[in-house]
Amino acid sequence: MSKIIIVGGVAGGASAAARARRLSETAEIIMFERGPFISFANCGLPYHIGGDIKDRNKLLLQTPESFLARFNVDVRTMSEVVSIDRKNKTVTINTLIDNTQYTESYDFLLLSPGANPIIPPIVGINNPLTYSLRNITDMDRIIQAIEINKVNHATVVGGGFIGLEMMEAFHQRGIKTTLLERSDQVMMPVDREMAGFAHAEIRDKGIDLRLNTALTDVQFTPDTKTNDRLTLSLSNGDSLQTDILIMAIGVSPETQLAKDAGLEIGLIGGIKTNAQMQTSDPAIFAVGDAIEETDFVTQQQTVVPLAGPANRQGRIAANNMLGRHDSYQGTQGTSICKVFDLAIAATGKNEKQLKRDGINFEKVYVHTASHASYYPGAETVSFKMLFDPITGKILGAQAVGKDGIDKRIDIMSVAQRAGMTVDQLQHIELTYAPPFGSAKDVINQAAFVANNIINGDATPIHFDEIDNLTENQILLDVRNPGELSTQGYIGNAINIPVDELRHRMHELPKDKEIVVYCQVGLRGNVAYRQLVNNGFKARNLIGGYRTYQFSKI
Amino acid sequence: MSKIIIVGGVAGGASAAARARRLSETAEIIMFERGPFISFANCGLPYHIGGDIKDRNKLLLQTPESFLARFNVDVRTMSEVVSIDRKNKTVTINTLIDNTQYTESYDFLLLSPGANPIIPPIVGINNPLTYSLRNITDMDRIIQAIEINKVNHATVVGGGFIGLEMMEAFHQRGIKTTLLERSDQVMMPVDREMAGFAHAEIRDKGIDLRLNTALTDVQFTPDTKTNDRLTLSLSNGDSLQTDILIMAIGVSPETQLAKDAGLEIGLIGGIKTNAQMQTSDPAIFAVGDAIEETDFVTQQQTVVPLAGPANRQGRIAANNMLGRHDSYQGTQGTSICKVFDLAIAATGKNEKQLKRDGINFEKVYVHTASHASYYPGAETVSFKMLFDPITGKILGAQAVGKDGIDKRIDIMSVAQRAGMTVDQLQHIELTYAPPFGSAKDVINQAAFVANNIINGDATPIHFDEIDNLTENQILLDVRNPGELSTQGYIGNAINIPVDELRHRMHELPKDKEIVVYCQVGLRGNVAYRQLVNNGFKARNLIGGYRTYQFSKI
Repeated sequence: MSKIIIVGGVAGGASAAARARRLSETAEIIMFERGPFISFANCGLPYHIGGDIKDRNKLLLQTPESFLARFNVDVRTMSEVVSIDRKNKTVTINTLIDNTQYTESYDFLLLSPGANPIIPPIVGINNPLTYSLRNITDMDRIIQAIEINKVNHATVVGGGFIGLEMMEAFHQRGIKTTLLERSDQVMMPVDREMAGFAHAEIRDKGIDLRLNTALTDVQFTPDTKTNDRLTLSLSNGDSLQTDILIMAIGVSPETQLAKDAGLEIGLIGGIKTNAQMQTSDPAIFAVGDAIEETDFVTQQQTVVPLAGPANRQGRIAANNMLGRHDSYQGTQGTSICKVFDLAIAATGKNEKQLKRDGINFEKVYVHTASHASYYPGAETVSFKMLFDPITGKILGAQAVGKDGIDKRIDIMSVAQRAGMTVDQLQHIELTYAPPFGSAKDVINQAAFVANNIINGDATPIHFDEIDNLTENQILLDVRNPGELSTQGYIGNAINIPVDELRHRMHELPKDKEIVVYCQVGLRGNVAYRQLVNNGFKARNLIGGYRTYQFSKI
Repeated sequence: MSKIIIVGGVAGGASAAARARRLSETAEIIMFERGPFISFANCGLPYHIGGDIKDRNKLLLQTPESFLARFNVDVRTMSEVVSIDRKNKTVTINTLIDNTQYTESYDFLLLSPGANPIIPPIVGINNPLTYSLRNITDMDRIIQAIEINKVNHATVVGGGFIGLEMMEAFHQRGIKTTLLERSDQVMMPVDREMAGFAHAEIRDKGIDLRLNTALTDVQFTPDTKTNDRLTLSLSNGDSLQTDILIMAIGVSPETQLAKDAGLEIGLIGGIKTNAQMQTSDPAIFAVGDAIEETDFVTQQQTVVPLAGPANRQGRIAANNMLGRHDSYQGTQGTSICKVFDLAIAATGKNEKQLKRDGINFEKVYVHTASHASYYPGAETVSFKMLFDPITGKILGAQAVGKDGIDKRIDIMSVAQRAGMTVDQLQHIELTYAPPFGSAKDVINQAAFVANNIINGDATPIHFDEIDNLTENQILLDVRNPGELSTQGYIGNAINIPVDELRHRMHELPKDKEIVVYCQVGLRGNVAYRQLVNNGFKARNLIGGYRTYQFSKI
């Protein structure tokens, strides 16, 4: 009979407890949770604040009572494990209700303490109107603050998942909202040009989005007559009055307990584990936001505070504690965020990361309909794929749009995990009927473009090279004149519509490189092929004007 | 310079023509189409009849003029290629407008003639109120028939894609509709128990669905005062009056031209091709609904009349005609159909096919929410996965539901094509945020169940065994009593809710096998694990009562 102690009762911890019980009736399982709730839907918190999830109880997926009845797990909430005695295999628990302490022995210990919101050392940041959002208690406090201190204006710092979700929650409640982001883009898992679609959507909805802007100072002004308020100083010298401030710049692994016990901490600050989810002490396992894990693409250490990996790691830890042999297979960082009517998603590595890691890559962009364009409701999927230009191996993918974004990134995630190349990706056979897809899906199309490049049937030029053309290059816009006036165009481009090109090719110089572009890259490719097959030097702007345009938003 | 003749101007033919031109400016390309239209959206036809696609022009994706302008392809409509002289490499064309004939030479010939609707030799079937739907002309005739001969009742024969879509189209126009299907299910790509969800939806919408019912005789009654009508005799002795009859029992490859030219026809009746899309004559290629292709799973010959494969084959044929080396990688038969509010989809082999081919398999069912159940709009995804019980290799998958069906089958299609096992499938990392998915997706869950079976952590029993239990087995329903009264239950089951089982286990016999079930199989697994870990013999009904229940609808 094994005695299993679990520290943390949410995603990873709760998954491990349930799996452990299914594997063994005789194991003694105790789960400690420092907060009042276990197994709550932390990904749902912003949606309750915003009002999409009306019933708060829906966020409480399990209670200590339900967990006991179903899984015979002894759940102790408001109980913080404060130290580990590895030699004697015991933990000391502090009961937060009455501050008493006691010990429990273990055969196996699982650490699933999660992560803490990062609060930067900004002057004045500790004030009654500044919050972060990590659990039910935080959520309740924010709702209370909104309702008691009448909030006309909210400021969110940080354009990651929680920042974007909180921005939307405030907007849904009719509160004017400012989003501050220190870097030049929101939603860091995608690259800058893909984030442009989110920036456009955010501004369309009336949010005051300020990129390249950091919060430098906070001043709290109590006002008993009307409302307390904050004055925020920004890195660009501006200042801003606001009624509530949400800090959502990121989280850091909760490692204090592990550190104090002498467990190895990785170079990037998470608890170090092997593929069996064991820490440097084989009797102690760790999972979830608190750990470092292996990146699927680079095989290097990474920290991925997401619910999916946490849940699967919990299951794997339980398997290994109870005699099954199971290994975690690395994290791709597949993620998605709803930004008003858009979804924005990514898997694998993005271009910023590939550049930083010195990994050779090529990229393609496709913008095409989420399903047959003649069937109602089709929306543009803007898709980016990164791949190895020699082997064709998939390195990462990103997508933005109003429909079918989750599907495309899920497909890419599986294809990447399976080790597929962009050559194989051409042949994938996806569901097609007009309401659901296209005979040549977004992904087939992206694979076609990628293979054209690999096979030398296309010479790409990218949006980030367009502003630096030389004298030996000329820009050719092959769209119809009407599109240039409605969509805009690039500086000094010549316009010859693709369907007139065959007869007007003589207007173009043979001694210069013709840089062709259309709206999304498809007609550009047709024109490009005509030109090179007629002896011109040419390149085609992959992803067309649309990619160029949104990179600047 | 090559001269390429293409027979058939829709999916495969048009794809090949466009690709060929992109590869070569000098190739002479002539595309013959027997009908008046090229490159029309044949998958969209039922949706224009039903009214979802309002503008008929949206179905006409290209015209001969647009194809000429963009791709310099000489498109000749109303032109039927009536014979091939392989020795002299010429084809004879009959111009349907004036019935004149002429010849054209070719270097390469591509056959993309499509398939014909099967019209069975039923007495009276040739009458003015009976139609099939294959092209724009058919569609126009059906719409005209509905509008001129006031149609109060329609009958559709055949529950495949076109039959189901036509059923829905009539229903959308407010026409009472009967659907006749000779077999015991609609939508043959899925198995009978999965089709049950479609049967329920079809009947819910007020369609007169008659399974196991064939049409045996048709009698046409002209009526100049009111409306002409048909009297249908059915295999069960019933008869039926109807105002329009749609025959949609399937299609057969159009092979006459190929046969007459002495090209090899496969054993199942399609034009035989190799992976380069070449027929038995290396100068003649063939693609699309007219050909036999290789099944991805069994590597045997199959006929898959779907748009996706046709389009990709056209591209591959063009590549090979113009000196690229490209191979078709086999067809999984991935397909989807909208049935009112449901989507129903499949990839790979179904259970019927695996049994017929003598392939060893195991199966699992999962019914779970399309995204986090606490976020609004989640719908149940009913999912079936077939796999090799020894190697864990994926053999096929099926799904039905109102949301996220295309996504799950697309993921399975890619996983299968990549050669993934159900073990690897546990680890896939899909997009998760509450509006889009779950931390443990449907597919992760199905993979968990499959691996539990492979690893001996679950002993399954299936819905089709439940009605044949022996004296040595007893049924245990572990749902709450309220669910039994609202959802129904199986015959003589004992009811002990899962959360009471630990304390009431003594009520169960140790000498019999306990057949556990719950609503979908999840609580059943918890109970099953408790029982076997306490020394009972037990099995869990995979997919639970929901699978059993819909297998009978």
